[in-house]
Amino acid sequence: MKHPREAPIGVFDSGVGGLTVLKALAAQLPRERFVYLGDTARLPYGTKSPETVARYALQAAERLAQYGVKCLVVACNTASAVGLAVVSERIRDVPVIGVIEPGAEAACQASRSGHIAVIATEGTVRGGAYQDAIVRRRSDARVSAVPAQLFVALAEEGLCAGPIAQGIARHYLEPLFDSRARSSRPDTLVLGCTHFPMLADTIRTVAGPDVSIVDSAETTARYVRRTLEAGSLAAESGEGSLRLMATDAPERFARIGGRFLERPIRPHEVELVDL
Amino acid sequence: MKHPREAPIGVFDSGVGGLTVLKALAAQLPRERFVYLGDTARLPYGTKSPETVARYALQAAERLAQYGVKCLVVACNTASAVGLAVVSERIRDVPVIGVIEPGAEAACQASRSGHIAVIATEGTVRGGAYQDAIVRRRSDARVSAVPAQLFVALAEEGLCAGPIAQGIARHYLEPLFDSRARSSRPDTLVLGCTHFPMLADTIRTVAGPDVSIVDSAETTARYVRRTLEAGSLAAESGEGSLRLMATDAPERFARIGGRFLERPIRPHEVELVDL
Repeated sequence: MKHPREAPIGVFDSGVGGLTVLKALAAQLPRERFVYLGDTARLPYGTKSPETVARYALQAAERLAQYGVKCLVVACNTASAVGLAVVSERIRDVPVIGVIEPGAEAACQASRSGHIAVIATEGTVRGGAYQDAIVRRRSDARVSAVPAQLFVALAEEGLCAGPIAQGIARHYLEPLFDSRARSSRPDTLVLGCTHFPMLADTIRTVAGPDVSIVDSAETTARYVRRTLEAGSLAAESGEGSLRLMATDAPERFARIGGRFLERPIRPHEVELVDL
Repeated sequence: MKHPREAPIGVFDSGVGGLTVLKALAAQLPRERFVYLGDTARLPYGTKSPETVARYALQAAERLAQYGVKCLVVACNTASAVGLAVVSERIRDVPVIGVIEPGAEAACQASRSGHIAVIATEGTVRGGAYQDAIVRRRSDARVSAVPAQLFVALAEEGLCAGPIAQGIARHYLEPLFDSRARSSRPDTLVLGCTHFPMLADTIRTVAGPDVSIVDSAETTARYVRRTLEAGSLAAESGEGSLRLMATDAPERFARIGGRFLERPIRPHEVELVDL
């Protein structure tokens, strides 16, 4: 079945992190209607097993499919890393787009030396999806992937700058960037978790001004736009809209999500759904 | 139905934090058989809504009841704060013991001034259970309750000492302890989350040497022992044993749980169960 151009785009994440991707999507595609689902009852995905994350991702995707979406964006790095295959297999009639491949593409384009660092959740690093996606594009690439789990909690607490955030950024990044000769340092750093763009300024102060910082939100949004245009699926009129759903605690979703979306969210805008 | 003395004791938590309570229980009750269930597929509970936490707690309790437990310990502050009533109502034939009441009891005994600080998860603080339990015992008490969500991530990362942990401890505790006249500072601090005892040394350096630090694990274990003895339910022989179950990722449970239990856990010791 071909979906109409005016059908919505489904976006899901384990929680509020995917709102950084949604923000980029809305900027690239201002006429589109978005349906966003945050699986806040079961977040975080980043410390859970691949089997569990894949099962949760599939449930979220199937729920979004019920809204007749014309395209499904997996706006969570962990779910993209370990659940994209199973979701794509089940949801066959619309494009299913994750954040890993666009992120890897952007990293390969940004890097001159081919030495690329990836910071992500435990689950994303362990699954090796970024490492694979980068080396598939550039066989000369050297990838240093490091889990940076505390950044998730920092972003949710809103502690994105200041001495605590800097201390934690040094803890994770100094082994990658500080003590090496310039020639053996990565020249590109992938923010492989949708929470991490919130900490980009702090991360930059530690990684240094010469390092290209790649945030997959932007490249994913461009990739979604190209996919819709290629399939004659992009909305041609309309003012755009956003429907927000969460599996738990609308009040917390609104409070923390507003920082990620960079606009206030009122709790009653967030529908509580059960998966 | 009266359970036999040799029946096991069920203990549950959202993840590995409750192992601090289990350790105290095993020290108080070395002859007992313990069945521990960590709901790692859905942790953390501390940021989720009361309704969701109560539902998860009930599922975990009902699973443990299938093992014929003679006593059920809710070794998670958030689940005790918002789920104990519903669990006690459903599981009626055995004592159901949470960690909040014993923690509040210990705090009231430790405090001379009646000014008691509680640090806990967002959910525990918001629910107000510690505040209520303390004031019910001491109507003159003044309770300052503060959410300290990052401590959970720090304990799971094993970053319990050093400058990062100290920076975060200062962030949460200095507003409570530092800038006040000695007479208006709390004289007692309740560690209202089972993760926080891992950070006790760091917390002490910030709170100061005069503050009594109350960890509900010890008092809960003593309360469980008294309850079993009063009901003629304590094991009279046996060497004690421990059966570990988790709803996700046995490898991670073993790796992080070993630090909480202070003995190595091998991944194959951890049974994967579905709730």
